Amino acid sequence: MQTADELRDAVEAYLGSLTLTPELGRLEEALRYSLESGGKRVRPVLCLAVAQANGASVDDALPAAAALELVHTFSLVHDDLPAMDDDDERRGRPSAHVAFGEGVALLSGDALLSEAYKLALTYEGSEVARDLVDATIGMIAGQYRDVTGDTAELEELHRLKTGRLFVAAVRIGLDVAGVPASDRSAWLAFGDDVGLLFQIVDDLLDGDGYVERLGSEGARQLADEVAERAAGQLDSVGADTSALRELLDALTFRTG
Amino acid sequence: MQTADELRDAVEAYLGSLTLTPELGRLEEALRYSLESGGKRVRPVLCLAVAQANGASVDDALPAAAALELVHTFSLVHDDLPAMDDDDERRGRPSAHVAFGEGVALLSGDALLSEAYKLALTYEGSEVARDLVDATIGMIAGQYRDVTGDTAELEELHRLKTGRLFVAAVRIGLDVAGVPASDRSAWLAFGDDVGLLFQIVDDLLDGDGYVERLGSEGARQLADEVAERAAGQLDSVGADTSALRELLDALTFRTG
Repeated sequence: MQTADELRDAVEAYLGSLTLTPELGRLEEALRYSLESGGKRVRPVLCLAVAQANGASVDDALPAAAALELVHTFSLVHDDLPAMDDDDERRGRPSAHVAFGEGVALLSGDALLSEAYKLALTYEGSEVARDLVDATIGMIAGQYRDVTGDTAELEELHRLKTGRLFVAAVRIGLDVAGVPASDRSAWLAFGDDVGLLFQIVDDLLDGDGYVERLGSEGARQLADEVAERAAGQLDSVGADTSALRELLDALTFRTG
Repeated sequence: MQTADELRDAVEAYLGSLTLTPELGRLEEALRYSLESGGKRVRPVLCLAVAQANGASVDDALPAAAALELVHTFSLVHDDLPAMDDDDERRGRPSAHVAFGEGVALLSGDALLSEAYKLALTYEGSEVARDLVDATIGMIAGQYRDVTGDTAELEELHRLKTGRLFVAAVRIGLDVAGVPASDRSAWLAFGDDVGLLFQIVDDLLDGDGYVERLGSEGARQLADEVAERAAGQLDSVGADTSALRELLDALTFRTG
């Protein structure tokens, strides 16, 4: 079994050597710029760890894991655009539209999304691609609620905007490992909790969202409860979930 | 066999009653606005006519045909954005970003692309989805060359930006009908010619591109040659291609 750090290294190596469609020409530079921006690769590592815990080889799961990271990266590139959040920086570097111009950034996001589906379609069945498309549409629906200020249902917004891709990471790990629908419920509940945990800790770091509603201590307490519940789901699945426990700890106590 | 007009009516009816992902919420309005803007539906009709000529039922081909129109519509919505062509009008109506704002227009394009893949993934195999993703990436690569002014290779630019989705319409019609690779060459050559014809006639209507290079008469002559060559491909396939001949005539002599 590979550790969470080893899985992260595998994701980095795979993304670094990923062959994009040659026709993209110099647009490829903009895709690579955004892909190689030093993210934590939480979603692909989650996918690999779930696949591995269910008996799949990490190599078999890498294209699907990378597809999740490409969808996540697409969403960041479009989110940073002036028409959306208008963020000039992303992880300490100029965001894509600052580095390449708005038009090229827009197209690089479109291309990242399409390359993600291309990766998802390298699998024999279309289960991985279907799960990816469902999560992507959910995520876009969440962005829409965020952009239009329809934040009355904060939990619904986060469940869509952040949560859907986390659950998809778990679901797609199960797809690759061929886990039947009847054996998935604890895994999917775990995925829901990981997405929620990620969001609460994000809000603790930014001092908004759950912190505004529950206070710092209340949000911290909720994060701990959710992490404990997620660990309980892992207890129940009867598999070697050591990499997932590492990931869970890293998410619970992350500081950036 | 259905006529080109009947196929167009079938596309309109299918798009009009298409169920989008419920989570999109009010974003659906922006998708429908752009989808129901009175386009000629050339790509989906082409796909249906090819499928029909090869023995498939029109009903079976409709989801794939609609997916092509959604990809085309996604490209128009993003193309019209201020960061790209900055067009305030599309077919005599305010373009999406004027009607809904830039952020919502951007997201509606992202959602149209994802809904297109969702439709393509309703088929049992993943051939339709794979062909759609390849064409979409080619189209985006063409947009990139257009945006960055890399127009040294005008034919390459058009082959990507316009041509790829036309060939995909033919290819996906063949996919749905289950035509083996060995019987496809005349059909794919026909698809290439239809894409080229569409572009030349576009330039004749706008007075740019091929008209700038060949003059009005030269461009008209080239259009007629390409149309004749395409008709010759139809002669060679040994099928009832009446709807495709209608479509070819309509494209050759269109005035808008």
